[in-house]
Amino acid sequence: MKTTHTKNLVTVALACVVVFIATNAQAADPLASWNDGPAKQAIVEFVKATTTQGSPQFVPPEARIATFDQDGTLWVEHPMYTQVTYCLERVPALVKTRPELKNKEPFKTVLSGNREAMAKLSQDDLMKILATTLSGMSVDDFTAEAKKWIAEAKDPRWKRPYTELTYQPMQEVLQYLRANGYKTYIVTGGGQDFVRVYAEQVYGISPEQVVGSAGGTKFGYDKSGKPFLTKEPKLLLNDNNAGKPEGIHLMIGRRPSAAFGNSTGDRQMLEYTKAGDGARLAMIVLHDDAEREYAYGPAQGLPDTKVGTFTQTLYDEAKKNGWTVISMKNDWKVIFPFETK
Amino acid sequence: MKTTHTKNLVTVALACVVVFIATNAQAADPLASWNDGPAKQAIVEFVKATTTQGSPQFVPPEARIATFDQDGTLWVEHPMYTQVTYCLERVPALVKTRPELKNKEPFKTVLSGNREAMAKLSQDDLMKILATTLSGMSVDDFTAEAKKWIAEAKDPRWKRPYTELTYQPMQEVLQYLRANGYKTYIVTGGGQDFVRVYAEQVYGISPEQVVGSAGGTKFGYDKSGKPFLTKEPKLLLNDNNAGKPEGIHLMIGRRPSAAFGNSTGDRQMLEYTKAGDGARLAMIVLHDDAEREYAYGPAQGLPDTKVGTFTQTLYDEAKKNGWTVISMKNDWKVIFPFETK
Repeated sequence: MKTTHTKNLVTVALACVVVFIATNAQAADPLASWNDGPAKQAIVEFVKATTTQGSPQFVPPEARIATFDQDGTLWVEHPMYTQVTYCLERVPALVKTRPELKNKEPFKTVLSGNREAMAKLSQDDLMKILATTLSGMSVDDFTAEAKKWIAEAKDPRWKRPYTELTYQPMQEVLQYLRANGYKTYIVTGGGQDFVRVYAEQVYGISPEQVVGSAGGTKFGYDKSGKPFLTKEPKLLLNDNNAGKPEGIHLMIGRRPSAAFGNSTGDRQMLEYTKAGDGARLAMIVLHDDAEREYAYGPAQGLPDTKVGTFTQTLYDEAKKNGWTVISMKNDWKVIFPFETK
Repeated sequence: MKTTHTKNLVTVALACVVVFIATNAQAADPLASWNDGPAKQAIVEFVKATTTQGSPQFVPPEARIATFDQDGTLWVEHPMYTQVTYCLERVPALVKTRPELKNKEPFKTVLSGNREAMAKLSQDDLMKILATTLSGMSVDDFTAEAKKWIAEAKDPRWKRPYTELTYQPMQEVLQYLRANGYKTYIVTGGGQDFVRVYAEQVYGISPEQVVGSAGGTKFGYDKSGKPFLTKEPKLLLNDNNAGKPEGIHLMIGRRPSAAFGNSTGDRQMLEYTKAGDGARLAMIVLHDDAEREYAYGPAQGLPDTKVGTFTQTLYDEAKKNGWTVISMKNDWKVIFPFETK
């Protein structure tokens, strides 16, 4: 009896050790949510090559720059960009202050609440809504209002704040790169001021490391003589397509060593990154997981949608140019941080 | 004799100790080139208030932003901005590739070599020269050429590279702020791309922390299909006057806690900085040292010139709003780093 008891104790103790080692091994893997495979391997090898002293591809710490598209690369973009939802929801309040917009398109359609009609709005219509809803406010008012909205708004499918719908594996890449001396930037087609409102809390990325589509501002004084900035409708930077490398030059001033995207809007950023000397990492997320997230973009025969178009042509360019395609389905153990809790 | 000898030894030893302590005290003073006075005191008190845990004016490390004008604040700007000199010297090479400019003003005047006539060129003429000489090149070619010029060009008065004509006391402020967790930015009316060429070497300020007047770039491909950026004549940001806070919002996205300038072009940046909550440091350099550097700007009856206008009105605003005026003559023990070697 005693022997059995001792045996049992030893077994339990051994099991504890095994669990402890396994837990520790997992904790030690900075990319724990990635399955082993070419994508994970590409990231680890890139970091090793560029940060090991004496490596022929060593990059000095001050030159370590990595850029990340946001919508569809760091968090969910389907079925509608979060910022577009925000702007559409602002329309009723906007029309209250500017009643002349009430019977004008595209505002009329938005006010109708007809979701099907809204889904058919053109890119131009959306740009018109964005420009109208986001300009004319003071920068401080805009920030306060956007902060309030983002704290309260929820995604209809997951019933969670949008800020919880970031991709856990990409959060790990951000942290892993920063732990290895990289400055991580968001380079988004979305509004720079909007993304800056939450990027620090959500990704640990400070406002000055968010590059996005940016309107002008106008400096002026209020009645008491206190200076403030007002958002202007003038577009300074359309941070999509060719605008991404142009924005990177404007705001960062050097070519990234690594870039991450998920659509044709990221093509030029990936090309620009890859065209530099030495080790370069270009990665592109393929949304091929209809069950855990979404499957879309014509690459590999997925259905086309209005957001984040990943064409077959882009897929072929990726394969030809040595970009690494990340398959959400095959490369990611989990999708969202809340799945790990 | 022996006693005297011993006494002497003791005296020498004591003297050594005194010298050692004095040297150490000096080495320990991060603002060693500053005379004691209100300017030095303002800097030290600001850093203490914003970086001491528990201080009511404590600023968390990630929000510590300090902005510095460059010409006339960090280095010599008189009698002509370095970048203007660079552009004027580029005109002959430019005219070789574009002979149609040869007989057109203001290029004709520049080609004449007549320094008096050149000194009379208007601001508009200079802007025209800047836009023409700095656009149409690839970003890489521009960087290589500007780097070469800045390595070779010398200031006519000191016969030294322009990059040696930085102000030692301001270099100490940059280092002191960084040592206390501040991110230091240049916010210059000068060309962003030009200043980025040397800011890291000269001030330890990386390209992404240089905000300046910026033209657009255009993404394209060379004959072999390799992507590159070309400098465009279109002005995206005129980083002077109201353009400074606007540029700060665009590029940094938050209000600085401290700002340093020397002219009316810095007024709005100083106002914007000072208008924030908590401890704010606004400092403005008065060029009142004709002997060691230059004395100019109508403040306090100094002669007016074409660069760095510090008007009496600005001086009065500084005094009224609690900005600290730095007198080069009275506050700075030395002007240039080479004086300390």
